[in-house]
Amino acid sequence: MTLLALDAGGTSTRAVAVTGAGEVLGYGRGPAGNPTAAGIVPAADAIGGAAGAALAVAGSADVAVVAMAGEQTETFREEVTARLAAYGVRRVVLDHDLLALFCSGTPSPDGYALIAGTGTVAARVVDGELDRVVGGRGWLLGDAGGGFWIGREVARAVVAALDGQTGPTALTPLVLDALGVGTGSADPDGAAGRASAIRQVVSAVYARRPVALAELAPLAFAVPDDPTARAIVVAASRALADLVDAVRVPELEGPVVVGGSVVVRGILAAPASLARDLVPPAGGAPVVAVPDGLVGAAVLALRHTGATVDAATFVRLRDQVLAAAPAPV
Amino acid sequence: MTLLALDAGGTSTRAVAVTGAGEVLGYGRGPAGNPTAAGIVPAADAIGGAAGAALAVAGSADVAVVAMAGEQTETFREEVTARLAAYGVRRVVLDHDLLALFCSGTPSPDGYALIAGTGTVAARVVDGELDRVVGGRGWLLGDAGGGFWIGREVARAVVAALDGQTGPTALTPLVLDALGVGTGSADPDGAAGRASAIRQVVSAVYARRPVALAELAPLAFAVPDDPTARAIVVAASRALADLVDAVRVPELEGPVVVGGSVVVRGILAAPASLARDLVPPAGGAPVVAVPDGLVGAAVLALRHTGATVDAATFVRLRDQVLAAAPAPV
Repeated sequence: MTLLALDAGGTSTRAVAVTGAGEVLGYGRGPAGNPTAAGIVPAADAIGGAAGAALAVAGSADVAVVAMAGEQTETFREEVTARLAAYGVRRVVLDHDLLALFCSGTPSPDGYALIAGTGTVAARVVDGELDRVVGGRGWLLGDAGGGFWIGREVARAVVAALDGQTGPTALTPLVLDALGVGTGSADPDGAAGRASAIRQVVSAVYARRPVALAELAPLAFAVPDDPTARAIVVAASRALADLVDAVRVPELEGPVVVGGSVVVRGILAAPASLARDLVPPAGGAPVVAVPDGLVGAAVLALRHTGATVDAATFVRLRDQVLAAAPAPV
Repeated sequence: MTLLALDAGGTSTRAVAVTGAGEVLGYGRGPAGNPTAAGIVPAADAIGGAAGAALAVAGSADVAVVAMAGEQTETFREEVTARLAAYGVRRVVLDHDLLALFCSGTPSPDGYALIAGTGTVAARVVDGELDRVVGGRGWLLGDAGGGFWIGREVARAVVAALDGQTGPTALTPLVLDALGVGTGSADPDGAAGRASAIRQVVSAVYARRPVALAELAPLAFAVPDDPTARAIVVAASRALADLVDAVRVPELEGPVVVGGSVVVRGILAAPASLARDLVPPAGGAPVVAVPDGLVGAAVLALRHTGATVDAATFVRLRDQVLAAAPAPV
């Protein structure tokens, strides 16, 4: 029996083919496979393409699990089913990306998951199922501590500093550079230069999609000794810890599996001088960082065949998938 | 000598004609006269129309002062000058709406101004001129405590309550009604009904322009005994007090003139039970609420002719303008 596992994200789609015993047979990759991000047909096409690459050796598969964020519509399932029928797939299961992320980090049936990329969402997992999900309402209604939120705070802080409301911050030159803002012949530290810079920052921000502010988030982690940047990152870490707290119940122990650029490449990768001020995302519980939900999608595919994925199988599967898959962009 | 004073806002334009001694000769009204909100030509047309109505008796004017928010471009000045030339106006002065607002509330040359409508901005006024302005960066980069900010907090609070992250709030039925969200046949208090309501709220919010969230702001003031609404309004009052603090200097005393629906119809109109928790917008300084900047535009017009507007002239002019102008919408 061959199983196909896919992590259909808003930026890229990753696929692996595995045997019923959890041995990796192939890997594939495609563009965005999330129907909300890419549209239903392009997303299904991306999934079909990644599946084809993963099945280059095996040729066909029996069951496919697609891990995805957002609503799992019947229309999307039909489109994906039609694409994967070409590879013999008879059953397509859509699963939540949060559950796949959790299963990428642990063979435990119980615990917690946190994703902090552009947006934020957390879940409690009980008996291998999502028991409670909070967050995930997008940049206008939620996502505190995520990339959009951090980027917006960075932009606000730079405007306030240029305006003299707060002291100077090392974020200013980074943001001006990122937004392509110059002060021309005006002295960038003089009143005219600063007023010109503010006007250009404001214009640049409102000219882009609001969510593009997330592109400024890495700047907050780039100057860890700057007090302004530090305050933003500390506040973000607190918001993410609050999000995990919102799903945590005392009677359920288990690891906290985390994913997304803000938490994996930002908070968990912070230098010691910054890390000591950050609120850990999970109190005292063990934290496992994962690059995406691909390993977990394979775990879920195995479970859908009735197999039990014990710790040894999990570790072998995880190591094989991570070896096959290049690091996600 | 006849003077024309206009307050060219993003929703409507008001005009008065006054004599050089400050006696009101006529009143006019038109649609949005702010070039950023309405476009340069429609805004100039609105100003021309309101001016014509205000000059119905006087026939012509010598000087016009236009109070407006945002950038005062030469192109806009030329368009307005062309419209007002039909009424004999030879000189058009564009002035900042914040200064006009301040001069609507006091004959003092020194003090502070705060506008909290959809957005927020504050200024220090010294010797009859704007000395320092903070805020006014729009919903994405500023405006804490303004109508957008309050409306966003209201929407977030309702989603959190429906989601069980927080306790119930009296805001929920108000927001569902305002957004036209029903739960159909599902029990609105059951899990399915609440999940359906959340989906519809999220869809409705993202389907509108972000700034339309400001329409939910009055709901926060509608249920003053609800702890959730109260917390939002208290936080807004604190943000507005912080904004005034950002322009305040100990050596400059003077009244704080406030305008905009959030502060005038919300914070200053709060019932005593709510008011005792609010942060006053100006510490212990006297606060003067004004409906708009029309009186101040007339004061500025008189000053531009070289006249001194003493306290008695100010009071007479103010009372005449307020008697001539219907309450702003």
